[in-house]
Amino acid sequence: MTPTITAFSQSPDRGRGLARDMRVRWALEEVGRPYDVRLVSFGEMKEAAHRALHPFGQIPTYQEGDLVLFESGAIVFHIAERHAGLLPDDANARARAIAWMFCALNTVEPPLVGREIAMREERDKPWYEQRLRMVEDCARKPLGELSSRLGDAQWLDGAFGAGDLLMAAVLFRSKGSGILDEFPNLAAYVARGEARPAFQRAFAAQLAVFTAASSG
Amino acid sequence: MTPTITAFSQSPDRGRGLARDMRVRWALEEVGRPYDVRLVSFGEMKEAAHRALHPFGQIPTYQEGDLVLFESGAIVFHIAERHAGLLPDDANARARAIAWMFCALNTVEPPLVGREIAMREERDKPWYEQRLRMVEDCARKPLGELSSRLGDAQWLDGAFGAGDLLMAAVLFRSKGSGILDEFPNLAAYVARGEARPAFQRAFAAQLAVFTAASSG
Repeated sequence: MTPTITAFSQSPDRGRGLARDMRVRWALEEVGRPYDVRLVSFGEMKEAAHRALHPFGQIPTYQEGDLVLFESGAIVFHIAERHAGLLPDDANARARAIAWMFCALNTVEPPLVGREIAMREERDKPWYEQRLRMVEDCARKPLGELSSRLGDAQWLDGAFGAGDLLMAAVLFRSKGSGILDEFPNLAAYVARGEARPAFQRAFAAQLAVFTAASSG
Repeated sequence: MTPTITAFSQSPDRGRGLARDMRVRWALEEVGRPYDVRLVSFGEMKEAAHRALHPFGQIPTYQEGDLVLFESGAIVFHIAERHAGLLPDDANARARAIAWMFCALNTVEPPLVGREIAMREERDKPWYEQRLRMVEDCARKPLGELSSRLGDAQWLDGAFGAGDLLMAAVLFRSKGSGILDEFPNLAAYVARGEARPAFQRAFAAQLAVFTAASSG
């Protein structure tokens, strides 16, 4: 059965791949699984019909027969668990890959999102410069620690897997904002992720939504 | 093989159960699994030997034979996957429980932690009152949405499971700060979590560490 995911009908990032459907598309492409996309407007996202699928009124959702999922990390995990290619067979290596998934979403992403929010919502406040330094320091700490752990390895724990997919997707969102360039091995790690054919197919698919909406 | 977890030798919360070893202890108690605890000081946490186990120099870690894990969410998942009691057998229900685990850690916890950090680090800043309103609004949004979804149900999706454990543990950390009282069904949900015998055993075990350190 072909799963259906939801994505923004008008992506606020203008097709730059920053919305969280990107990581789900990427995972589906990595395992070679076709999928349908249902586009939802900002208005529809907040309506009861969509909230029945996603209690927080966001995208993406994932529907496959009777199963309805939300949370991009959980959807990527569901895909990784059911199809070969994103989780190792060895039990310990699999548990470590899952640890990197949680790490991407609970340790690395929150301070980067905190920085994003500050840059968006506090830019015009009199305290902005001081706050920017605080949020940058807060984001730099886990990035520095991740950079130390990665060293000159290609991926976080052996072969590319679901942990790398989520970590690279999280870091990719901050690529345009400069902070990643302070950690050249992390910037190169994201570039390796972006170079994967599955990433490129996923990126092209989400960009096509924006392009079609703009020319419509 | 008995697993070994790490915890603070001197918990900054004075035994209130706010450190992230609490959720791992709780999961181990729910599945009836004995465990050893190795206490680490703040100094030891930042040393190379501990960073080899936890790249971000935090607690908890989880060691079981050759397996070393970090990230409390991943550790709880590992325990839930290997022992009966925290994940349903039905495949779809299991996937939804995992979605609530990711939701607790990636949607609900980050704004609560952002609020905690602001209350700790910006209290003396001239902009504190305005910032406090911003971080409170930011935390209230997902709490309100979670409250709406939970309604008058006992747990998030049928029987108590790993998703509830992480969600209740995340909310528990904010219990003393007032914001949870704005959502009576969430406060009652956390109280149901706290009333579980496994929670109480875990809480007593972490409190005993603080009590022993204080009287030593």
